[in-house]
Amino acid sequence: MNDQKAFQDYYDEAYSHCYGCGRLNPDGLQIKSYWDGDETVCSFDPHPYHMAVPGFVYGGLIASLIDCHGTGSAAAALYKSQDRPMDSDPPIRCVTATLKVDYLKPTPIDATLELRGTIKEVGKRKAVVSITLSANDVVCAKGEMVAVQMPENFASK
Amino acid sequence: MNDQKAFQDYYDEAYSHCYGCGRLNPDGLQIKSYWDGDETVCSFDPHPYHMAVPGFVYGGLIASLIDCHGTGSAAAALYKSQDRPMDSDPPIRCVTATLKVDYLKPTPIDATLELRGTIKEVGKRKAVVSITLSANDVVCAKGEMVAVQMPENFASK
Repeated sequence: MNDQKAFQDYYDEAYSHCYGCGRLNPDGLQIKSYWDGDETVCSFDPHPYHMAVPGFVYGGLIASLIDCHGTGSAAAALYKSQDRPMDSDPPIRCVTATLKVDYLKPTPIDATLELRGTIKEVGKRKAVVSITLSANDVVCAKGEMVAVQMPENFASK
Repeated sequence: MNDQKAFQDYYDEAYSHCYGCGRLNPDGLQIKSYWDGDETVCSFDPHPYHMAVPGFVYGGLIASLIDCHGTGSAAAALYKSQDRPMDSDPPIRCVTATLKVDYLKPTPIDATLELRGTIKEVGKRKAVVSITLSANDVVCAKGEMVAVQMPENFASK
């Protein structure tokens, strides 16, 4: 599937510094999200220091992955609903309004984590995304988030 | 207030490696939480690389701080409800069952972030904690989380 360009790699330079998903943040997670049919997918290999207790991932990483995969998925869904490619203008970037995470099982740190997003609703400037986070094909956490299109005046809101 | 020992500094060594709150994780956030009357407090200075867009904190850090301050607050509340000090046995450590974050305003990255927790419910092995995250006395995010006492067999759950 990865002959696609990742959602995050369409982001303008000004929006590419996010710790979670910015391709220009050398200290960050640099997650990459793609379409897989009607779902969105993202894989991530935790670092050893992302632990909660030895062997397991800390909850904040799980929330961060769901959050950034969610905003990327929301932006992609908005482009899709407007029937235009992700490199068309005006650009769409989303921020999170609400994030909810249910931690179902301890998440192993030595596995590749797979996030799968389902677009539940798309509005004019808003999307609702449900996300599962799995390790070794076992769902360890579920998230639901509401993302809204970032206003032009984000920085002065 | 900080003649108190932080909640996290009571954790046994085995539980002190968490990226968010472990005193023994050199790469982590090493947050410290304290009682302030009936509320719990934690201050955190974001690093420059914790950005979402220049000038503002990424959402995953906010979720991580709320999560780890929440589990620390829940553990402290459980000790308090059992009328025993945090260095008494058996030790109590909590994990998150559910985390919900409402992002109200962009959070400035050049401010000290203050988290304040209110214990909404305490059960035998569970606590519900509401948390505000403020910068420059403005509430930027609100969280609510359900934390449960970590079972002895956490790693094999």
